[in-house]
This record gives sequence, structure tokens and C-alpha cells, in this order.
Amino acid sequence: MIAEIIAVGSEMLTPFRQDTDSLFLINQLNQLGVVVGFKTIVGDNFDHLVSVARSAIERSDIVLFTGGLGPTEDDLTRECVAAALGIELRRDNEIVAAMYKRFAERRIPMPPNNAKQADILQGAEVMPNPRGTASGQYLRIAVNRQSRIIILLPGPPHELEALWRYECAPRLRHVLPPSTIATKVLKTAMLPESAADQRTAPIYKRYANVQTTVLASQGQVEFHLRAVAHTPEEAQAAVDRLAGELEDELDDAVFSTCGESLEEIVGYFLQMRNLKLAVAESCTGGMVAERITSVPGSSRFFLGGVVVYSNDLKTLFADIPPLMIEAHGAVSKEVAVAMAENIRSMCNADIGVGVTGIAGPAGGTEEKPVGTVWIAATDGARQEVVERRFPGDRERIRRWASQQALDLVRRLVM
Amino acid sequence: MIAEIIAVGSEMLTPFRQDTDSLFLINQLNQLGVVVGFKTIVGDNFDHLVSVARSAIERSDIVLFTGGLGPTEDDLTRECVAAALGIELRRDNEIVAAMYKRFAERRIPMPPNNAKQADILQGAEVMPNPRGTASGQYLRIAVNRQSRIIILLPGPPHELEALWRYECAPRLRHVLPPSTIATKVLKTAMLPESAADQRTAPIYKRYANVQTTVLASQGQVEFHLRAVAHTPEEAQAAVDRLAGELEDELDDAVFSTCGESLEEIVGYFLQMRNLKLAVAESCTGGMVAERITSVPGSSRFFLGGVVVYSNDLKTLFADIPPLMIEAHGAVSKEVAVAMAENIRSMCNADIGVGVTGIAGPAGGTEEKPVGTVWIAATDGARQEVVERRFPGDRERIRRWASQQALDLVRRLVM
Repeated sequence: MIAEIIAVGSEMLTPFRQDTDSLFLINQLNQLGVVVGFKTIVGDNFDHLVSVARSAIERSDIVLFTGGLGPTEDDLTRECVAAALGIELRRDNEIVAAMYKRFAERRIPMPPNNAKQADILQGAEVMPNPRGTASGQYLRIAVNRQSRIIILLPGPPHELEALWRYECAPRLRHVLPPSTIATKVLKTAMLPESAADQRTAPIYKRYANVQTTVLASQGQVEFHLRAVAHTPEEAQAAVDRLAGELEDELDDAVFSTCGESLEEIVGYFLQMRNLKLAVAESCTGGMVAERITSVPGSSRFFLGGVVVYSNDLKTLFADIPPLMIEAHGAVSKEVAVAMAENIRSMCNADIGVGVTGIAGPAGGTEEKPVGTVWIAATDGARQEVVERRFPGDRERIRRWASQQALDLVRRLVM
Repeated sequence: MIAEIIAVGSEMLTPFRQDTDSLFLINQLNQLGVVVGFKTIVGDNFDHLVSVARSAIERSDIVLFTGGLGPTEDDLTRECVAAALGIELRRDNEIVAAMYKRFAERRIPMPPNNAKQADILQGAEVMPNPRGTASGQYLRIAVNRQSRIIILLPGPPHELEALWRYECAPRLRHVLPPSTIATKVLKTAMLPESAADQRTAPIYKRYANVQTTVLASQGQVEFHLRAVAHTPEEAQAAVDRLAGELEDELDDAVFSTCGESLEEIVGYFLQMRNLKLAVAESCTGGMVAERITSVPGSSRFFLGGVVVYSNDLKTLFADIPPLMIEAHGAVSKEVAVAMAENIRSMCNADIGVGVTGIAGPAGGTEEKPVGTVWIAATDGARQEVVERRFPGDRERIRRWASQQALDLVRRLVM
């Protein structure tokens, strides 16, 4: 079963807007055991939309259109799908009557254009829209002896989601075999992407029935597992087995198996152990604190911290002796460790973090190139300190460094 | 001239990832006067990719593929485009030699798979990738007597963007007629979206040849103007005229007419006036500092600051008397002003900022509901302080508050 999603609307072909309905629909379709093979975004243009509809109907079992169901001239989805299928539209008098009634109640005349919202594909079922005027449509039809399901949905997310749940999903559940897809996500911190793949590929490649997608960002590699099997239990067992093997291999680099972010996990451990955190940041400029405080309830485990961008402030707020900076440089092991130790004791915290580095683009030297960052964390007894050379631009280096800082804390408290 | 963008990668058909390269490409293509008619997202599947490539080549003048150019078995773009066009791939020996050299320098054997990155569409020009190993390709070809431009680009944004600028855009500029599209962006801070639209719609609706898109986010309303005319000068004149009228109407709420972010503008003014900034944040948790330090060279105008999440830290690092917190509450005008004044004098800064509020979801009261934020800025002589009730969730409230803080600084220093 292959599904195709077609998002209709010229605004999604500008640099400002993305189609987002498809993320919701993909998740929902996957849960029903349906794989999405194609997504297409097309503007409010008759020929373009017919062309896209034709290719989709030819190659995909289920074709979902989102948007283009309003009353304006730009709303062409009904006409274009009818043209692509070579069928007629019929005007549904019940819907027209209901529309007249709604307008009459509001004491305004109905614009004649609105009646087109009652045009229904020949043979389609109307799916009433609980949150708007544009009805959905659901059509089962044979095209070149292939069975096809054609679905028209309104574009606004809250309308689409309601219509999906109450009208669309039940119809699909009725005709599709019971879902046999299971999913799981493993997230790891500070594992180089290539190493992560080298160590795990021999494992996940043995699971022919589990599709593994590896996603990497700054300091984070995620494994998205998806199994298709004959029964839901079998699918779940397959992802669980593979997830278990991957966890054994990657060990404590894995920080989450239920979708949590690194900052949520750090917060979870801190709170569980009743520990308070304080941070002293230079090159990350507040990003570590910002990430920690993005977690609701973070005041229970985060006291605060300092952003000591200038050397004077390193002395004022993190008690770094000017002579230490002179001797070792602001970007040094000594300064990072002192920042972590001092912020911890100054704030009466249990855990202290220090980050100092060169985010660039300027400020690098041969000895300490852009990307050099020292990161330290301490709980008073133990001390973790690492030097890193992060790749990429300013934003990436700062993101890497904040990730490393959070991961050091995680390793101290987990 | 119609362009079509095809994003290749199964991860973009999961609920976790969107294609983002296309936003960059649409903007770039529009500037060259090219309209994007279709975007398609397809997985790493031979048949699917060939099907999508065929439809695109049939209907669009310029077809751009992003992704699927790596060395793994999943990377199928080269093979599939060749199959769709009915042409051969040739292995480029120079590229193979360069790859062997690179691997030799790193003292590791080259995996044999890698050689496929040197497979070039018959007749295509190689576009060297300055930031990665996957070369781009540029092919002009006649398909059914129609002239087509086929472009293969790597998926990682920083590789794609560099390759676009240095290799791809110059080639397109050479073959396309001069662009007659002009664009301009006006950004405003802290203007309510409805008010912004009410005041500006009567103006921009008078400009039939300028398309105006209004985009709103937390504390920021942007006006994206785009004119198409017979000559570039005419298009430019139209957007400039409309932009002028909008600026007159919106006055000093407009902070940027050249695309800069609010933090860049604040940094620009601070640096121009040789002023130093320091911040004291509570509910924003470092977001103000993080935004300021995201600007390259920010050490020239930003000294640092404190994230005083707990009340003890408000006293320790921002010198807030415990009695003041007891009398007025941590979220109060008095505390916000004292934070701004004290951080300014403690850090020897010219401008001080204080932010204190309730980001939620917990912590609200009837008198001070979630979303209540006090924000103060001072240059020693003048003092700006505002109370706001921001709508939305924790993330939105924090974003609103950081925007308000930056805007107060802008108004003090501009």
C-alpha cells in the first residue's frame, strides 16, 4: 500500500511557507500501516494540479489532497481531481441548502461562488467538516483496473485533523488490513556520525524487516526504527529487539528511547536526584541555560548562571583570576575547570558547568583554531573536562558545545 | 520558465523531517526570475525516483534534484536521473583520482562504493563541491525537442548553499533572461499582527503589481514585497515605492529593510555608538544573551550577563535586595528595573537589560497569570520599562519576551 500526499496552495511555493499537514498525515498513515511514497506541493494552477493528480493516481494506491477546497476561484482541487480521473462533479443539494441556511442565520447573502463547495466527485462520500465549511470527500474507484482511494481534505490544520480523526481514519481502518507497523526512536549524544553508523550498520542490516533511518545533527545521532510485520506484536517485537541490540552496542551514548530531548533527560535526572545546576558560559553565550530553561519546571533543578563573554566578567562573575587568563588564555582547560568549580560553589549548586571556546568566524589562531572549545562539569567530587574541535560555522559550533555541556552533566548525574 | 524541485530522501517521508533546502532554492530561483511550479519529495527508491524524474522532466523547464548524491547504496539520484532521461553515466577519472588522494592523505583506504560519487550524467558539467565530496551536476539537454536544464545538488544545506552560489547561480544567470523580479522585506518589532495588517492593507492593496505577504511570529511582523514588471528598474521602483509608504505608516516599528535580524540591528547600533551591553535574565533563561551572541563579532558590544533563575541568584548576581522581592514579588516592575540598573553598573556597561516573568505552564496566579513579563532597559540616564501579557506556550512567551528586550535596547540606542 503506497500513499501519496498532494498539498495544494501557491503560498507553499514561496520561500516563506512549508506544507506541515503532511507531517501529521504521514504519522497517521504509518499508524494504519500505510507507507507514504511521495509528497507533492503544487500551486493553485489548473494544468499543474491536473498533471500532478494524474501521476499520483497512476502510481499510488491512496492519494490524499490537502487544501484548495475553499469557495474562491483559486480553489481548484475538486475540478482538477475530477478532470484527472475523467469523471463528473455533481452538486450536492443538501450541502447547498445547509450553506444557504448558515448564511441566512447570519443575515448575510451567500456569495454565489460558495455553492462550488458543494461539488462532489461522482461516487464520492461526503465527509462533513466539524470545524469549517469545506467538506472532505472520500472516493473508492478503479483506475485501469487498479483499485484507488482518493481523499480530499481541507488545508487548515485544525480542520484537517478533526476531519481525519472522525471521518477519514475510520473509513480507512475499515478497508485496510490491521496495522502491522511499529516504531521506536533511539537518541545518542556526542557520538560521531560515521562511528555511529560503522558500529550499528552491521546490526541493523541484519533486520531485513526493520527500516532504520539515521539522522544526525550537531552532537546528536538518532536511530528511527520502523518495522512492518504480519501482526502488530511481531512488528513491536522486531523494533524492540533491534533497539535492544543497538543500546547494547552504543551503551551510555544512548540518552533517550522515548523521544525526549537531551535537556529533558538532564532535567529528569537532576530532579530525580534532587540536584541543582548552575552554568558559566562564554562562547555558547547563554545557549546552555536557554536549553535547560526551555524545559517546563526547570526552576526545580536549575538555579541560573552567568554569561561571561568579556574577560572582566569572567573575573567578576566566575571568579577567574586575571593571571590565569593571562597565563593560559581565556580558552583553556584551566579556565573551563575554574568556571565550572567556581559557579558551582558561588551558586551553592550541586553541579557546575563551564564552557569557553572560539565560535568564530574571527578569533582563531593556529594553536587554537575556530571551533576549539573547552567544556567542564563538576559535582564537587568528580570532574569531567574535554577539549573539542567542532566543525562548521558559528551557529553549529555553539550548538555542538551546548550539546557537549549537557551531555557531560548527564554523565555526571545519570 | 517553470522550475521543479525534487527532494530525495526517505527520511523526508517520515513524520520527523521536512525538506528545507527548497525554501532556500525557491528564494534564489525567484531572484533569477524563475517561478517554482512544483516541489516533490520522494524516498530512496529506484522506481519511485525514476517516476518522479520523468514527470518533472516532461512538464518543467528546470529540474533541480537535492540529495541522494552520497556514496551509499541508498544514494540513487544519479542512476535514476540517467534512467529517466535515457542516457548513460560516465565515471569521471579525475574525480576518482582526487578521492583516492584525499583518502590516502587521511591514511585510510577508500571504500570501493565511494567511486560512484564520480558518476556523471553524459554531457553534464561537474560542479565541484567546496564543502563536501558529492559533486553537483549541471546538464542542458533537449527532451522531446524541449530545452531542459537538469541540476543535481547535494542535500546538506551548507554544501548545497555554497555550491549554489559559486557554481549553479552563475551558470543559470548566464542562460536566463535578466530578472524582472524585485523583492524587499520590511521587518517590524512588537507590533500586534492585526493592527499591522489593518494599518497597511489599505496601502499595499493599491499596488496591484506588488505581491505582499505578511508573516507574523512572536513580536515580529514582516512584509515581504515582490514585484514583477517589464524591466528590473520598474520592478525595483514598485517595491521601493510601496516599502516607502509602509515605512511612513509604521514609522519606528520598522527595524530592518535589508533582511537583518533584530539582534543584528541592535548589535549594529551598539557598535556604531561604541556602547557595551549587559543583561540580567530570569524567565528568558539566557535567550536574550544567546540571541545577541549569535551575531558574529558580538564581543565588540556585548560584555555578558547573568541568568538569575532562582531568587538567591537574583540577589547574588544582580544585587536585588531580598526585601524587594518579598515586597513586590520576583515578577515586578521594581525587580526588572533593579536588574537592568544593577547589571549595568556591576558590569561597567553602557546599557543594562532586566527581564523577569512567568513563562509557564505553572507558576501563574490570578494577579500575575502565565505570560506576565516585566522588561526594563536603561542607559543610566533614560529608563524604559514595560509590562506585557504575552500569549501562547512557554516557548512563545520566552521568544516574545526576548524580542521585547531587544526592541527596548534598539529604541534606546538607535
